[in-house]
Amino acid sequence: MSTDDPEAGVDPTVLETADDIATMEIRGAATIADAAAAALATQARRSDAETPATFQEQLRGAARTLYETRPTAVSLPNALRYVLRGMDGETVPDLRESIITRAEGFQSDLEQAQTRLGEVGANRLRDGDVVMTHCHSTDALACIEEALEDGKSIEAIVKETRPRKQGHITARQLREMGVPVTLIVDNAARRYLNDADHVLVGADSIAADGSVINKIGTSGLAVNARERGVPVMVAAQTIKLHPDTMTGHTVEIENRAEDEVLSPEERTDLAVGPGDEDDDLAVENPAFDVTPPRHVDAIVTEHGQFPPESIVTLMRELFGETTGEPWEV
Amino acid sequence: MSTDDPEAGVDPTVLETADDIATMEIRGAATIADAAAAALATQARRSDAETPATFQEQLRGAARTLYETRPTAVSLPNALRYVLRGMDGETVPDLRESIITRAEGFQSDLEQAQTRLGEVGANRLRDGDVVMTHCHSTDALACIEEALEDGKSIEAIVKETRPRKQGHITARQLREMGVPVTLIVDNAARRYLNDADHVLVGADSIAADGSVINKIGTSGLAVNARERGVPVMVAAQTIKLHPDTMTGHTVEIENRAEDEVLSPEERTDLAVGPGDEDDDLAVENPAFDVTPPRHVDAIVTEHGQFPPESIVTLMRELFGETTGEPWEV
Amino acid sequence: MSTDDPEAGVDPTVLETADDIATMEIRGAATIADAAAAALATQARRSDAETPATFQEQLRGAARTLYETRPTAVSLPNALRYVLRGMDGETVPDLRESIITRAEGFQSDLEQAQTRLGEVGANRLRDGDVVMTHCHSTDALACIEEALEDGKSIEAIVKETRPRKQGHITARQLREMGVPVTLIVDNAARRYLNDADHVLVGADSIAADGSVINKIGTSGLAVNARERGVPVMVAAQTIKLHPDTMTGHTVEIENRAEDEVLSPEERTDLAVGPGDEDDDLAVENPAFDVTPPRHVDAIVTEHGQFPPESIVTLMRELFGETTGEPWEV
Amino acid sequence: MSTDDPEAGVDPTVLETADDIATMEIRGAATIADAAAAALATQARRSDAETPATFQEQLRGAARTLYETRPTAVSLPNALRYVLRGMDGETVPDLRESIITRAEGFQSDLEQAQTRLGEVGANRLRDGDVVMTHCHSTDALACIEEALEDGKSIEAIVKETRPRKQGHITARQLREMGVPVTLIVDNAARRYLNDADHVLVGADSIAADGSVINKIGTSGLAVNARERGVPVMVAAQTIKLHPDTMTGHTVEIENRAEDEVLSPEERTDLAVGPGDEDDDLAVENPAFDVTPPRHVDAIVTEHGQFPPESIVTLMRELFGETTGEPWEV
Amino acid sequence: MSTDDPEAGVDPTVLETADDIATMEIRGAATIADAAAAALATQARRSDAETPATFQEQLRGAARTLYETRPTAVSLPNALRYVLRGMDGETVPDLRESIITRAEGFQSDLEQAQTRLGEVGANRLRDGDVVMTHCHSTDALACIEEALEDGKSIEAIVKETRPRKQGHITARQLREMGVPVTLIVDNAARRYLNDADHVLVGADSIAADGSVINKIGTSGLAVNARERGVPVMVAAQTIKLHPDTMTGHTVEIENRAEDEVLSPEERTDLAVGPGDEDDDLAVENPAFDVTPPRHVDAIVTEHGQFPPESIVTLMRELFGETTGEPWEV
Amino acid sequence: MSTDDPEAGVDPTVLETADDIATMEIRGAATIADAAAAALATQARRSDAETPATFQEQLRGAARTLYETRPTAVSLPNALRYVLRGMDGETVPDLRESIITRAEGFQSDLEQAQTRLGEVGANRLRDGDVVMTHCHSTDALACIEEALEDGKSIEAIVKETRPRKQGHITARQLREMGVPVTLIVDNAARRYLNDADHVLVGADSIAADGSVINKIGTSGLAVNARERGVPVMVAAQTIKLHPDTMTGHTVEIENRAEDEVLSPEERTDLAVGPGDEDDDLAVENPAFDVTPPRHVDAIVTEHGQFPPESIVTLMRELFGETTGEPWEV
Repeated sequence: MSTDDPEAGVDPTVLETADDIATMEIRGAATIADAAAAALATQARRSDAETPATFQEQLRGAARTLYETRPTAVSLPNALRYVLRGMDGETVPDLRESIITRAEGFQSDLEQAQTRLGEVGANRLRDGDVVMTHCHSTDALACIEEALEDGKSIEAIVKETRPRKQGHITARQLREMGVPVTLIVDNAARRYLNDADHVLVGADSIAADGSVINKIGTSGLAVNARERGVPVMVAAQTIKLHPDTMTGHTVEIENRAEDEVLSPEERTDLAVGPGDEDDDLAVENPAFDVTPPRHVDAIVTEHGQFPPESIVTLMRELFGETTGEPWEV
Repeated sequence: MSTDDPEAGVDPTVLETADDIATMEIRGAATIADAAAAALATQARRSDAETPATFQEQLRGAARTLYETRPTAVSLPNALRYVLRGMDGETVPDLRESIITRAEGFQSDLEQAQTRLGEVGANRLRDGDVVMTHCHSTDALACIEEALEDGKSIEAIVKETRPRKQGHITARQLREMGVPVTLIVDNAARRYLNDADHVLVGADSIAADGSVINKIGTSGLAVNARERGVPVMVAAQTIKLHPDTMTGHTVEIENRAEDEVLSPEERTDLAVGPGDEDDDLAVENPAFDVTPPRHVDAIVTEHGQFPPESIVTLMRELFGETTGEPWEV
Repeated sequence: MSTDDPEAGVDPTVLETADDIATMEIRGAATIADAAAAALATQARRSDAETPATFQEQLRGAARTLYETRPTAVSLPNALRYVLRGMDGETVPDLRESIITRAEGFQSDLEQAQTRLGEVGANRLRDGDVVMTHCHSTDALACIEEALEDGKSIEAIVKETRPRKQGHITARQLREMGVPVTLIVDNAARRYLNDADHVLVGADSIAADGSVINKIGTSGLAVNARERGVPVMVAAQTIKLHPDTMTGHTVEIENRAEDEVLSPEERTDLAVGPGDEDDDLAVENPAFDVTPPRHVDAIVTEHGQFPPESIVTLMRELFGETTGEPWEV
Repeated sequence: MSTDDPEAGVDPTVLETADDIATMEIRGAATIADAAAAALATQARRSDAETPATFQEQLRGAARTLYETRPTAVSLPNALRYVLRGMDGETVPDLRESIITRAEGFQSDLEQAQTRLGEVGANRLRDGDVVMTHCHSTDALACIEEALEDGKSIEAIVKETRPRKQGHITARQLREMGVPVTLIVDNAARRYLNDADHVLVGADSIAADGSVINKIGTSGLAVNARERGVPVMVAAQTIKLHPDTMTGHTVEIENRAEDEVLSPEERTDLAVGPGDEDDDLAVENPAFDVTPPRHVDAIVTEHGQFPPESIVTLMRELFGETTGEPWEV
Repeated sequence: MSTDDPEAGVDPTVLETADDIATMEIRGAATIADAAAAALATQARRSDAETPATFQEQLRGAARTLYETRPTAVSLPNALRYVLRGMDGETVPDLRESIITRAEGFQSDLEQAQTRLGEVGANRLRDGDVVMTHCHSTDALACIEEALEDGKSIEAIVKETRPRKQGHITARQLREMGVPVTLIVDNAARRYLNDADHVLVGADSIAADGSVINKIGTSGLAVNARERGVPVMVAAQTIKLHPDTMTGHTVEIENRAEDEVLSPEERTDLAVGPGDEDDDLAVENPAFDVTPPRHVDAIVTEHGQFPPESIVTLMRELFGETTGEPWEV
Repeated sequence: MSTDDPEAGVDPTVLETADDIATMEIRGAATIADAAAAALATQARRSDAETPATFQEQLRGAARTLYETRPTAVSLPNALRYVLRGMDGETVPDLRESIITRAEGFQSDLEQAQTRLGEVGANRLRDGDVVMTHCHSTDALACIEEALEDGKSIEAIVKETRPRKQGHITARQLREMGVPVTLIVDNAARRYLNDADHVLVGADSIAADGSVINKIGTSGLAVNARERGVPVMVAAQTIKLHPDTMTGHTVEIENRAEDEVLSPEERTDLAVGPGDEDDDLAVENPAFDVTPPRHVDAIVTEHGQFPPESIVTLMRELFGETTGEPWEV
């Protein structure tokens, strides 16, 4: 067994999990985080290490293996860091125990995170409030659901959210909860902000400078909400806090397929002459945009609510100062 | 001939024009205004009035007949007021002459208005500028076209403009002019404002308090443009200046058909249970919104450019103080 | 008769009116303006002038006499200027006729001004709107009254308006109109702006730079209204347009009696030791403050509505460029 | 002794303190907090518990008993949490010792808190500064008092603070310190902000999202201060940090008696007709309002000064993550 | 005499004036305007035209000749337009008379313009005010001078105004008037805005959209003044109103010599290696910048004060709608 | 050895270091901090203390001696606090060890701080970005340098930064890195912000309320950057976090020599009459100004990036709650 091989001593189950993450069989921020923590616990349980150093080396190797399958999945390094930071003890059994306990704690917290977050967000809503939503976020919907369970009456104005119209999913789920819904095109948002008490959105990830990365259109909505005097609330579990941003990294924003914006038929209609379908007609389709913290009033997490400017402190508390690699904590 | 009948002495051609406006055979702000002015000239030419008073009465009757066909068409009262305000003279021949001259002047100005407006707007654009558009406006496009004719290189970022995607028409016409176009969904506007030098839109109508009534989404775009430091330019011929707003009237905003927002298939998908397709799912689809003057930098007309706060002065100059009915000026 | 005596040839009725204005028997912006115009008409009717020059001299003398009784009453120079600017003719009868006609026109307009203004303001209000008021203004109330007559349902949030609590007068008059009223202290304004669709106030006077001089507290309310996204509407007849401000003069703001703020009992309670009731406890009680145009959305007058930035044009149209004395126009 | 009875084993002195809090014999944020900590120390001293578990159960029971007397008093759960979080040890004597030490530390800190806070706040004031105050706050006054002791010359503009005019108390106390005072009505605030270097207010409580809950009128003042370029400083001991807001709860704002706003005589005067004194004339009298963090420059506490956006971190440091009940920490 | 030669019939004196303008012997906005008006009067006086048409043709030829010497001098077309717009009459003597009267009126107004403007500006200043200046403007200084003559005490904070430090000229002239001066570098402006009651600047020219073109640094100062709550006042005679901007033209901004920014010695010091003095070190030195109207509170002219948004109306009143060439009015 | 003598037992090397700091032989924030930490390590190494109490007393004495040489050097108390807070142990050897380890850790971190900070800052920059700089800061330049090392192409717009033109140093160093530079006067900043993607500055110190104290002109630039939509990034090592500001102290801002602003020749030129060179011409030359946190987007440190509002948490983490003297931690 050589230290040159980072996978040395890594348990096959871990490799399997890594594979599943790589092939996107395991997907979704929470599912990935849960699987990663479980894999580290398995590694700890099955480790054949005879010395603390070897044990630690194996755990770090497992973490690295998992991390490198999909380094841009924001919840993955968070799960690994959180568990590894709990590795503590002078003996292999103690170390093992510490990892298993920490991983299980993480998984248990994760399981309850959305409900807890929902309770926090629900507390911000008053009976009779009208909420404007953008895109689809189960974290955001959890806030409304908890508010309904608290006996509050809530109405929703749902932006359709071009290009993929995830607002339709939101509209349907809200109706299933019994929430009266008004569906509007994104262009109508400023007009209907006059009727809204809150803007409520989820987050793809949250940066250390307090910026919220979320579905394209969020930042424009937030600017209008400020101008109209409507507070903006972001619902996001802490696995969405983006560790790389602590070291200044900006979040890479995916440019999605052009045909989400323009169907092939529409594309053809826009062709000016034969053969020049693409000449000088570019389609840009970024998936997300960045809302600066000054346009957000509160970020609601399972650990309570925070002004966006202080979320970096929560990141540091949970995941440490992330100057190194996730497996080196 | 009794004064009780407002159509007394009104020429059949005028009635025909009135009919065509009513049935929307004649439509479009400029076309309606042109037809109305022509009808008044015809009335003047063919009038059998023997006294100045009768002549004036007939002209006012013709104006009233025309006006009442479609009182919400903003260009119609403007054309009538403009022509009638030029009625001047002590004798029937003098009065006739004054109306014909005034009506022809109006028609001639109207014919050149878009080109002149385009020249004014083009002067605000510099070589190499990038312009963001919303919806489709021939007045706005005239500004770009004139800039191209002045030898300037212009690029465009075109918002698709849900629900009816008139941005596609804009994109196609810009490409036909040879303008490089980037098409985006409306939600991506704030992101691409970072790359834009101007926001350029048309107007459905302009109010005396400096507000711009234009396609839904304009006001949200303007708020974002201010936040991003991008100037907003509105291109609108003066027939769009809304005379009723001088007396405080707000512009009635049409709520258009729901199926522009939601196709029947989408509607069905959103149905929660059998039979409740419509329960508690409202769709709101206002055609226009209102942009306050503080978010607009200049209104470009065929009479030059104006800050939105001074447009009321131009309205008064062209169409008089509109406290009475359009045919009473 | 010497030109050194400005009162030479001035009719006794004019002197009487001047006296009544000076002793404040005639008071209130509209009453003063009406009396001044009537006095000029009387002067014209009774003039014994044999030459046009003498007639004009007498009229100017009358205007000067009237003006100098109370040069700070903003409506007085407006009335004088308006009437004198209509003096036209080559002969004494023509001049006389012109003055009488102009004065009567002014008086007639004045009589209808509040109703006309009310109609304009009412048009800005929609059925179901909630209006927040500050102080007491018959011009502002006229807007609500006309809206009620148009069949609209209006509710009001009335600020009490310390120190003199004129909000109570407003509350009572609104209730007499049948308007549901919520009375609040001035400190509660920002909280209740969330429930308001308009802020509606009158004006003591309006300056050429678009500033609104009104009851102390107006400017702070307007700043909060902008922050909360609520439009601010000022109702003011054109006799309130302050002619001196065209030449840059700022409006002198009266500091009213301390006991409006602090009753003698309260004053005594605040005394720290025997004999020092006044030491180092100043009370400031300015009657008005200045709201910059950027915090006002529309000024509603009997000539229509205007953005505050264009009111100077209306001033020039009605009263001329006021570089000289009011009697020299 | 059954665990079903939460008061089982709770010392009679604790019950007495609870009673005094419930009957408001003990009132005021600091007094309540001090009494609660003292009661827990007494409970610890007198506990007859024989096992650590019983001891802890008794302490939690005592805390719960105290808490439930007045769950809305913000300082009460803070005191309980702070003390209970220090409960540490394996044996009853160790546990007892830890509680007594922690409670005494809390009481000692509390005693010095206002002075320390005053020193921090004083450091923000420069010699010659003019401070505008709203309502009456001993924390705010402590800042001025310490500045005076540092030899700085300070002047004050005191808002009277309708409806209860607590500004009079502030004015009197400032005069007793020798501070020159200018008293103004609340409506005059924007005018006199031009002469102020700071706005200085206290707080009823402070929320985890950085909002400041304080006497009605604070938020409107803060918005105007930002517009006028005057920094806003809030003086508040950490017992005012509202623990429930960490979980998103909004602070319930009391609507006080109508007769604070309207005397019976004034009420009668406002009656429109016989018998309808109350019809359609509502009086709203909320005690507090909410100032968002973006309008506040610094919160001054006995632990130093903080931007409002980071106060949540201080809350977590002092009182823990408050997802459970105060007695469950 | 052929109409193909625009100079046909143009008086030699006019040609001489044109030459002097071209060679910059005649320079400065007021001097150029005065000379142009005088030249048109001379042309009128000396015209040998026998028909009104020829007279008019000659006058337009003279205007064109003058204009084409220096088409970018903003006051030149203003003078020409103003005079030509007064050309009125059916006979040559009448036309001649009209031109001479109009030209003399223009010259006389021009002579008094700065004093009148100064009086208007002075009225905006109160006794004891502190004024911050940028660059050097005799129009701005006239406002202070008149305020001093009105007996007001004024102090000045003078920005040095890099690169050419025209603030030194301002400082010296203010001291000669007896005004206490504090000189600061441009970077210190925001700090000292806290001590200023007004920002007072001149203008190079003013655009129809209300923008103020003035010495580089004006716009940044105005933005800071708004943020600090200090009003901004622009002093500019109406010959500075830029006629081309009515048709949307932007004002061309001169990029001045690099050595105003960097002395040859400094340039050498910045050279990284031998021979690469200029590589990749660009110096940009624009003479002016553009301040949008929303950052300006009032424009002070000899015709009174105006909000920047209404200046276009004054332009139209004085110089007509400038869609054609200056000689074609 | 008496406790009355704070220097009792202080090692001569420490006294030497103190001397060097006092005489400014040791200068610069990082150099001072490094020397102070080294001196405490030396003190620990050489201490002859026989009891832990004496050892601690000596260390505190050494810290006090060092501190009092230059109490305004912000990095000095930070270094002392940081090291002393690590003093831990029951025995003299343990205490010694703890101090030496802590001091060496501090020095090692300090050595790498600029590089680490540069990496964090570089991550905020994208390939092709244009950065505007003010003054000269090695921390800011480190960000650009690291970005270049990451293969990004960066351009710079360099403000000259009157009065001392440190922008020239920045320009030269950037050119040595191969960065294309455009040099502008400070007045041109707003114009060129249109071309910039970031404002990047260093800091003299950073306050607990999130304010950034930096070279005069920074705050005005930041206000303009916000208005133009350009984010502002401050690069500052944590030794710049100003500990006194945690207790509300404002940072004393030095007023530098007048001749930095005005050369003797210029001074003479500004003299109005003989002998009055100084009368009423004041020159103010503050070295720094204060930028409020709302105008700053991120503070970049060697511990990652932070919104300015959360920097106080980092201060508390590194240097403790600074209510006492630096040697008393």
